[in-house]
Order: sequence, then C-alpha cells, then structure tokens
Amino acid sequence: MDNSRDGASSVGIVQTEHTYLCAAPHQLVLANGATLGPVRVAYETYGELSPQRDNAIFVCHALTGDAHVAGRRRADDRKAGWWDELVGPGKGLDTNRYFVICANVLGGCQGTTGPGAIDPQTGRPYGLRFPFLTVGDMVQVHSQLVRHLGIDRLLAVVGGSLGGMQVLDWAARFPRQLRAAVCLASAARLSAQGIAFNCVGRRAIVTDPNFCNGDYYDQPSGPNLGLALARMVAHITYLSENSIEAKFGRRLQNAQQLAYELMHETEFQVESYLHYQGSRFVERFDANSYLYLTRAMDYFDLTGAHGSLERALSQTDARFLITSYTTDWLFTTSQSVELVNALVAARRHVSFVELTSPYGHDSFLLEVDPLAELLAPFLEQTLLAARQSAS
Amino acid sequence: MDNSRDGASSVGIVQTEHTYLCAAPHQLVLANGATLGPVRVAYETYGELSPQRDNAIFVCHALTGDAHVAGRRRADDRKAGWWDELVGPGKGLDTNRYFVICANVLGGCQGTTGPGAIDPQTGRPYGLRFPFLTVGDMVQVHSQLVRHLGIDRLLAVVGGSLGGMQVLDWAARFPRQLRAAVCLASAARLSAQGIAFNCVGRRAIVTDPNFCNGDYYDQPSGPNLGLALARMVAHITYLSENSIEAKFGRRLQNAQQLAYELMHETEFQVESYLHYQGSRFVERFDANSYLYLTRAMDYFDLTGAHGSLERALSQTDARFLITSYTTDWLFTTSQSVELVNALVAARRHVSFVELTSPYGHDSFLLEVDPLAELLAPFLEQTLLAARQSAS
Repeated sequence: MDNSRDGASSVGIVQTEHTYLCAAPHQLVLANGATLGPVRVAYETYGELSPQRDNAIFVCHALTGDAHVAGRRRADDRKAGWWDELVGPGKGLDTNRYFVICANVLGGCQGTTGPGAIDPQTGRPYGLRFPFLTVGDMVQVHSQLVRHLGIDRLLAVVGGSLGGMQVLDWAARFPRQLRAAVCLASAARLSAQGIAFNCVGRRAIVTDPNFCNGDYYDQPSGPNLGLALARMVAHITYLSENSIEAKFGRRLQNAQQLAYELMHETEFQVESYLHYQGSRFVERFDANSYLYLTRAMDYFDLTGAHGSLERALSQTDARFLITSYTTDWLFTTSQSVELVNALVAARRHVSFVELTSPYGHDSFLLEVDPLAELLAPFLEQTLLAARQSAS
Repeated sequence: MDNSRDGASSVGIVQTEHTYLCAAPHQLVLANGATLGPVRVAYETYGELSPQRDNAIFVCHALTGDAHVAGRRRADDRKAGWWDELVGPGKGLDTNRYFVICANVLGGCQGTTGPGAIDPQTGRPYGLRFPFLTVGDMVQVHSQLVRHLGIDRLLAVVGGSLGGMQVLDWAARFPRQLRAAVCLASAARLSAQGIAFNCVGRRAIVTDPNFCNGDYYDQPSGPNLGLALARMVAHITYLSENSIEAKFGRRLQNAQQLAYELMHETEFQVESYLHYQGSRFVERFDANSYLYLTRAMDYFDLTGAHGSLERALSQTDARFLITSYTTDWLFTTSQSVELVNALVAARRHVSFVELTSPYGHDSFLLEVDPLAELLAPFLEQTLLAARQSAS
C-alpha cells in the first residue's frame, strides 16, 4: 500500500481484480430465462477480511460507476476512485475496520461481462445479442462473487441510485446474505419521469448513424454523439435547479458580452459544462452498456416482482439505513418514505434521514461527511450485534 | 362566422391573414445590428375592434405556438386553435367584448418570416443565414403589426412562457403601447436549467446528419430524428413529475407483461407518448426555427438589458397580472415573485396569483378556468379605467 500521495486516509494503490463465475454447468439464469456464463467479474477490495469473516461490506455502484471505488491505480493517477472520500482508513466506510468490496455490474463496460464482451459462440462482441438484463441479474452475480470470496454473510450492502436498487433487490432476493442494507437516493421503482429521461437518452444513441444496430465495435467510431447527448440530458437530471443556477447561472464561458451567434454552442458556461461532460463520458463508457443498464433501471420494480413492497422486504432481518436528499428530484424523498413505510409495516429495523443538500441527485456522491456520520455508528452497531449473537 | 360545430362559445371559422411590414427603407433593425425586411407576418383576429379602438388584446404565443389561437380553419377541422378554451364569446378573453390579435413570431415557421423563408438576396431559404433573433426583435414586429392595424394602445398583452417573455419585453420596450400586461408561467430571464435543456435540444438537431448545416429544405428529409428528440426532452420539462406519474406511471402500452426486449422503444406508455409527441411535432415545426427561438429564450434577460428589473419595468403604467403554477419547475413561482418584487419596488400596479395545478409548465395552457376567472375582472377594470380617463 502506497500512501505517498494521499497520506494515511487513502487506501493507496489498488488494482482491479478479475474472476470468472457462473461457468457451465452452473450458468447464470437471467430474469428473461436466458442463460449466461462464464461471467467475468471485475472487482476491487479494500481493507482486510476479519478472521470471523464478518466485516465485509459490498458497495453497489450507480449507472456509470465501476469497481474502482477508492484509491489510485498508479502513484501518478490524477483521479482517485469515485467514492474515495467515503472509503478509506478512518473514513465513513473505514477500511481499518471493514473489508470493502465493489464489483462492476453485469452488463457494464469496466471489466465485467457486458455487451462489449466477446460472445464465445461467435467470437465477436455481443452487441445487442447480449441478453436482456435486470437489476436482479446484476445482484445474482454480486452474490456469487461474495460467496466466491468465502463470505457467507455480508455486514452490509451499500449503494445509491441504481446501486440502491441493487441493495433493495439483494435484501429481497438473498435476505440472509446481508446484516444491513444502506440505500441512498433510490427507490423501489423508477418513476415515469425517470423512464422518460432514460427513453430520450437511449433514443439519442440508437438514432446516431454510427450506432449500426449495436455492432459498432469494429467501426472507426461508435455512436459518440448520441452517447454524449444521452449523458448531457442525464447530467441535468443529476443536478438541482438551485445548484445549476449557483454553479453557472447565466455566466458566459469565454466572453463578457453575448455573441449573437446561433451556432455558438458553448456560449453559456452551463452549455460548455454539459458539452464537456458529454465528450468526457464517451471516452469511458460503452453505448450498448448504457442501453442495457438504463433499461434495467426502467424495469426495476420491487413491488411488481413480489406483490407488495412490504412482502418484498419482509424476508430479511437486515437493518436498513435509508437516505434521501432535499433537492434530489430524480429520486425524491417521497420515494424513500415509501420504502420506510413498507419496512415499518413489515416490522423491520429502519433508520431514515432526509439530508439537506443543494446538489440534487448527485448529493449521495458529494455529501460525504453527513453520510459518513450516519454510516459509522450504524455499521458499528450492526457489527456489534452480529458478534454478540455469534458469541 | 360559422358556429355549427362548437356552438355559441366558439369564434367559429377563422383564416390566418398575412401582411408585410418593415419594407425598405423602414427595415427592422435587429438586436444584433442586422436589418431585415420586408417581414411577412401571419396573424389572426377575433371579435370586433371598438369604435374607440380601445379593446384590443394581443396574445403572444409560446415556443411552438402559432397565430391560430381560437376557432377552426374549416368546418371539418379536427382541432381548434391552441387556446380555444380561453378565447371566444363569453370566455376568459371574451370576443364579444374584446378584439383579440395573435401573430406568429418572427423566426417562426407558421407563416411569419423565419429561417425557412426565401432570402430575397439568394432566392433560396435563409437557413442559418437568417439573422440572429431576440425576444425584443419579435416584439418589435408585433408592435408594428398593432400600429398597422390602426391601434395606438392595446388594452392588454397576454402570454405564457416565451409569450410571457414577450409581454415583459413589450412593457419595457414600448411602455405606452399597453394598458395591461398579463405574464403567465414566465420569468425575467431563462434559468440555467432552462438553457441546459435548450442546449440539449439544439444539440440533437445539429448532430442529426440530415441537418446539413441548416440547408435541408431541398433535401428528401430534414433533421426529423433530431427535432423529434429535442421535442421529447422539452416535453418532459413541460409536465410535472406528479402529472407524468398520474398519467402514465409504469403502465405498459400494449401488453400485460414486460417484454424483456431491449429495442422495444415504446413498451411503457410514457415512452409511447413521448415518441408520439416527437413524431407529431416534426410534421408541423421547422428545425431551424426551433434553433432560433430557443436561443432567443436563452438570451432573454430583462435585467441585463436595462441594468435592473425595477428599471426595466418602471417606464410603463400598465397594470400587471402575473401567474405561476405550483408544479411548474421550468418557470418557477420564485421567478414570478422576482417580477412581482421588482414591480412593487417600481411602484407599479401588480396582481400575482400562484395557481394550484398538477400540470407543470403546461398549466398555463391547461388550467383555463381559474385563469379566465382572474382575467375577466382584470380586463374589465382595465377597460373601465381606460374609458374613464378618456372621458
């Protein structure tokens, strides 16, 4: 571990590891009935697994995240992992105490099998021949990885947004595999407005002439314009109206005066920012993965799958911590309250906090300090209870 | 007037009229310094101008509206004008009492000169060679039309959204030409979030390969996919989260069960609705007009143009009626309150109502009854005051 750059609070240099799960004859059976396997899984771990194997925490990433939660891949890495502020020695997910795992989701494009992977039957990338995926399919792979790592029961599963959907599905699907569930800025189902924005993003991708019905991997360029556009519209939904106003307002990017030029696409700072976000995104994300993962979000509906939300969440004895954020309009507080009400009705242990934050849906990534203050005692108590019941 | 279809409450059959304004040497001088003329203007009128010429009300349409506010163009016309519920005999804008005028905006595509018009210098459609437009340029043309119709002073100017921006600009630019200003679901400037959504919509158009840098008029197809996409994303912003949830929720369009097919683009009702909105829109709207008019919205900033909002609105003695809508997140109540505060500071006469409505930004078009209840006495008092001061 090299802490030279970040000091004692960083997990240091980490490498993404890979393993293969679900090899024949134990292939993964997906929600749509198709089978898939072997599945390559990219994951990272931080901290040490305790001798009792009772201190493992699984982090589920959101739509465009990856397994690289914390630390740096090289000493000169410009950027740390996506939740480096939360995961590390002495941090909210304290790697001095806990063994933290994160894996790229099934269908992703950051090392885990997804539509960009080679289809063993054809020797070519799957593209749209990759099977239809659900959040539950992602959780199945996560669950197998946990068992593969020799862990019977997780201390906690933690995630925000699509990651929070995975947390909820996990608690319903494998109720005994987790002692705690931490669901941030998420919901039991995607709202109609959320489906609508996803629909627009996918439309931008599939109408890009470079999409080639998903078979763009051997082309000079993929559907980069469409993918960037999808990111731009999604990015607006991650910010609050107030934060976008405070951050950019009507300020101009490179001038004191309005240009009065129609095709000046980046005149206002907010335009320049969105274009930048779009163009950076295509460097790291695969358009087909974007299609599959957003569709999995659309499909996620814990109530529909189990008859009622109360029933879906009644099988686990996990303790729940649920947070929403005052300015998040993509996953609203009322959606979190619906979860809380179902858990109360199911007589489960649940803590709920609506955190005040200006950052909209992105708050679950950005408002790390108040989250860490909630997480630390919650996890400590969960571990204490686990050890008391084991002794 | 033929009321056979709609009965006594309709203005009946109306035809769009056309006139040419701003012919040389009195060409229109635009905000960017360019000159334009002659300008063809498409407009409609309803009701009768009083002998005193004091009962004229100008309606300013929003982004995708046109001059056809009320009535039908033919007896078998399937649809009435876009605000037919508000404009007609005995309605909120009572055509038994008032002479109502509406004109397609400069830069539009419904009969008034815009980027799809023939450039007299080249004999071909302007396309992107059309000069850069502002809300003030639109108002200049409206104002000339009013004078052309022999009206010195309007009883009122009424409009919502981009139409409300025209109302505000009119009061600042030609303060003596109106006795009342009715500004619905609008603001003194577009928010950063509004600019962001417009930016995404324009990006969808200009990255469509059929855009051809705006010279698509002689092509087999224009940038229809891009324009439809722009409409889809804009349409989401016109609805409230609650109304989209209530209207569609997670209901499926044509099935009882989820299809688990990635490329089924219209599985959820909300997707089908958005695709329908997009495809219908391209039948009636020109992509270049969409670029010009959204950019005019972005540029609109009454404060920037006059130093302060108070100063901008202090020159008129018009009475103001301002409404916002509880669920409108594109033009929020706080933006209307900013207008009210500036008018109060400028010691102007202002009435403000935040109307409770579930329909988001579209409320100004849909919540006609409460608006009519506000408008009728407001206009009556304005006319009474005008006639008292004249006698």
